[in-house]
Amino acid sequence: GSNLARRLADLGAAVTVVDNLTETQGGNRFNLDGYQERFRVVEADVGDAKRLPALVEGASVVFNLAAATSHLDSMRDPLGDLEVNCRAQLALLEACRLHAKDAVVVFTSTRQVYGKPERLPVDETHRLAPPDINGIHKAAGEAYHTLYHRVHGLRTTVLRLTNVYGPRMRIKDARQTFLGVWVRDAVEGKPFEVWGGEQVRDFTFVDDLVEALLLSADPALAGRILNIGGSPPVSLKTAADTLVAEAGAAARYEVREFPAERKRIDIGDYATDDRRFRSLTGWTPRTDLGEGFRRSLAYYRRHLARYL
Amino acid sequence: GSNLARRLADLGAAVTVVDNLTETQGGNRFNLDGYQERFRVVEADVGDAKRLPALVEGASVVFNLAAATSHLDSMRDPLGDLEVNCRAQLALLEACRLHAKDAVVVFTSTRQVYGKPERLPVDETHRLAPPDINGIHKAAGEAYHTLYHRVHGLRTTVLRLTNVYGPRMRIKDARQTFLGVWVRDAVEGKPFEVWGGEQVRDFTFVDDLVEALLLSADPALAGRILNIGGSPPVSLKTAADTLVAEAGAAARYEVREFPAERKRIDIGDYATDDRRFRSLTGWTPRTDLGEGFRRSLAYYRRHLARYL
Repeated sequence: GSNLARRLADLGAAVTVVDNLTETQGGNRFNLDGYQERFRVVEADVGDAKRLPALVEGASVVFNLAAATSHLDSMRDPLGDLEVNCRAQLALLEACRLHAKDAVVVFTSTRQVYGKPERLPVDETHRLAPPDINGIHKAAGEAYHTLYHRVHGLRTTVLRLTNVYGPRMRIKDARQTFLGVWVRDAVEGKPFEVWGGEQVRDFTFVDDLVEALLLSADPALAGRILNIGGSPPVSLKTAADTLVAEAGAAARYEVREFPAERKRIDIGDYATDDRRFRSLTGWTPRTDLGEGFRRSLAYYRRHLARYL
Repeated sequence: GSNLARRLADLGAAVTVVDNLTETQGGNRFNLDGYQERFRVVEADVGDAKRLPALVEGASVVFNLAAATSHLDSMRDPLGDLEVNCRAQLALLEACRLHAKDAVVVFTSTRQVYGKPERLPVDETHRLAPPDINGIHKAAGEAYHTLYHRVHGLRTTVLRLTNVYGPRMRIKDARQTFLGVWVRDAVEGKPFEVWGGEQVRDFTFVDDLVEALLLSADPALAGRILNIGGSPPVSLKTAADTLVAEAGAAARYEVREFPAERKRIDIGDYATDDRRFRSLTGWTPRTDLGEGFRRSLAYYRRHLARYL
C-alpha cells in the first residue's frame, strides 16, 4: 500500500491513504517517510461504516488493499480474519456503491484461493479450493467485488497476487510474507530458516506489483479476475541460494522440517499463469529475484531499526 | 428444523433445539406445538460464543440448520447475512471443535452456491458461482465445514438443498420459500402470483428432507458435500397447476413478470443430480408434488392463524 501511495504521489495524483495501522498487518508510519506532506493520511478502518462515505466520496480509483494476510492467524482466530477480509470489505463496497459509484475499485486477492494446485501454472479458470480460513474469506471478498460489478454496476477488478516482497514489507515475522523474515535474518547476519525447501513459488517484486496496480485501474478491466505473477518460479532452496548470493558470504540458511501447524494448510508447488493480464495491459515484471533481494537488502540495511 | 426435531423426538432421541426464533427466518413457537415437553428448547443464537459450549457439549449429532435464507434480504443488508451465515457458523464450529469434537455435524447449504447452472441436472462437481450475497456466504459456510473436517478432524457433512416446502414453513412472504406464499394464498382463496413461470425447479417435501438429514448423520459421510433433490423438476407453471389441482376449483394464479430486483440475481432453470447421496445412503424421496401440496394445504387450512 505505501509503495503504491508513494508512486501515485510521484505521478501527481491526489492520494488519500486510509490505514488502521495494525502492526501485525504491516502498518508502519515509517513507510510514508518523506511523503507525509504529499498525501492525506487517515488512520481509520475500512470497515468503519461511519467514516467511509466521506473517505471514498470523489475518488476516481479506490485501491482496496486492506486485508488480513496471515494464514496461520486465520486458523487461530477465524473471527478476526472474518472481520477484516469479509465484514470490512462489504462495508467498503457499500460505501462505494452509495458514495463513489463511478469509482474504479481494484481489489487485491491472493493465489491462496486456488489451494493446492491441480495443474501448473495456475490460470484464472483453475477451480477454487481455499486451504484455510484466510483463503475462504479472500474468495468471498473476490465474490463480493464481482457481484457488485454484475448487480450494481460498480467498476471492480480483482487481482490474484502471489508472493509479493520488497522494501516496506513487514519483516518481524512471516505474517505478511516469509521473505520478510529471510531478509531480516540476512541483514542481521543470522541464518534464516527454510521450511521444506523443495516447494516451488513465484515472487513479485513490489515495484512491479505497483505498476500492475496502476494498469489495473483501467475501467475496461471492470468485472475481471486476473492473476499477477512475477519472476519465474523457483524452489524455496533456489530462492534462498539467491538471497545468500546477494547478501554476501556471512549469510546462510538452515533447512527445517515444515511445522505441522503449517503443513496442514500448505499448498505444495505454485506457479502463476498471468498471460491474460499481460496481454490485456502489456505489463511485464522487470525485477528478477536477485535484483529484488539486492534492493530489499539495501533498504533494510539502511532502515532496519524502523522495522523491528 | 422443527420437523426434524419432532421426528428425532419420535425416534426417542434426546433433543436440544437451539433457535433465536427470528421471525423473518421462520422462527415460530407453534412449530413445536405438542412437543414442548419432549425436548429442551433454548432460545439462543448459534453465534453466541458464550452459550454455545454448554449447548453442544455431549451432543452426538449437531444438525446445523441455522441460516438466513433470503436472497433479496442479503442484497439489501449484506452485513446482516454475514452475521448469520458466516460469523455464527464460525462460532458454532469453534464450539464444536473445542467442546464436541466427536460430534457429527450436518450443515445444510443450498443449490444457490452453483448460481446459474452451466448444465442440467447439476451435480456436486459443478463450478460454484453464487449469484448473490447469500450464495457467497453459504459457500463460505460450506468451506468452513469441510475445512474443519480436513484440518481439525471434525466429522462434518454438507448437504446442498433445493426448494424445500411443507408443513411449518414460513408462509408470510417469500423469504424462506416462494411456495409458502403460494400455499397461503391458495388456502385464503386468493390468486397467487407466479413470477415468470417457465423456470424449472425441483422441490423437496420436508418429510423427505428429514429422512435425508437422519441418513446424513452417518460418520462415514464426513467430509462430503452432497446434493439433495426431491420430486422431478417441473416448470413453475406446472408446479402452480399442480397446486391449483390440489387446492380445488377456487384456487388460481396469475403469471407476473419477474421483478427487476429479483431478476438480477435469478439463476434460470435448476434441477438436482443427487445420485451420489442416493447411492451412498439408499435414500429416495417418497412424496410427489401433488401429495406434498395436499399435505401442506391440509396443515395450513387447520393452522393458518398460527402462521400469519
